[in-house]
Amino acid sequence: MDSTVINESGSAPRLNHETRLHEDDHHSIKLWLRLLTCSSFIETRLRGALREEFDTTLPRFDFLAQLERVPEGLTMGELSRRLMVSGGNVSGIAAQLVSEGLVDRSPLPDNRRTFMVKLTPKGRKAFARMALRHEQWIIGLLGHLESREVDQLMALLDRVKQGPQ
Amino acid sequence: MDSTVINESGSAPRLNHETRLHEDDHHSIKLWLRLLTCSSFIETRLRGALREEFDTTLPRFDFLAQLERVPEGLTMGELSRRLMVSGGNVSGIAAQLVSEGLVDRSPLPDNRRTFMVKLTPKGRKAFARMALRHEQWIIGLLGHLESREVDQLMALLDRVKQGPQ
Repeated sequence: MDSTVINESGSAPRLNHETRLHEDDHHSIKLWLRLLTCSSFIETRLRGALREEFDTTLPRFDFLAQLERVPEGLTMGELSRRLMVSGGNVSGIAAQLVSEGLVDRSPLPDNRRTFMVKLTPKGRKAFARMALRHEQWIIGLLGHLESREVDQLMALLDRVKQGPQ
Repeated sequence: MDSTVINESGSAPRLNHETRLHEDDHHSIKLWLRLLTCSSFIETRLRGALREEFDTTLPRFDFLAQLERVPEGLTMGELSRRLMVSGGNVSGIAAQLVSEGLVDRSPLPDNRRTFMVKLTPKGRKAFARMALRHEQWIIGLLGHLESREVDQLMALLDRVKQGPQ
């Protein structure tokens, strides 16, 4: 249950989005590139760990994660909307997951052109295993922050999210 | 010189990565999804604005941004490394930018299999225009933060970057 898989670092010096900064860049640019560096760093580790431990991808994980929250299932359209990706990609992933028995896809009784997708019991079990590891990886990457720091970051990122009012 | 193009919001309720949270998720998960929500939100706006105003993409912008910092140019290998993407993608973008006259690509005199790329004067001018707008967009998205908040965020994100020691 360790999380070494995501704590490895290569031998090359660590590059990140801040490499392209100029001394006189506006502080908003510096902040944006640091934000991007942090999220890219974590995302890259998660992608690598999902591939290595579960031979799967982040879009597939996100697909299952959305379904896990809604036992009755979602229409393909609603799922695309929640995943914020195009329908084409979602259809491709759905087809794979159906063929692996992790997801069930069937037309609505009253509208045969609308498809509902939901987790199968096998999909629910498979996702539970991945979600547990996913949580451990993230704690491995962020667990060094003290709770006071987490609270401050949550509040400041909320200010970022709000955007200019 | 306004930045309305990136402040538009659709009519649908705003979805984000935090949609999939459970009440009892670990605070590290909540923090990660909020970080991802913030960076995805900004990245989506930047991609849209680059497409709309300059008919270009973020990978092309990043490619030019890396070259702009190094007037003498970079080898294709070094550029791939700095962009943290695979060589294939970088070659494709280089070919496009060369055909548009924004980038010059030529073999090293002493090693004809190694290619150097650098901005042409036209590429330098085109990038300067994009970089100015890019800065304005980011200020439009993050400029509502007070400097004290920016400083706190920079310090806390630095703690995130450091990772578990």
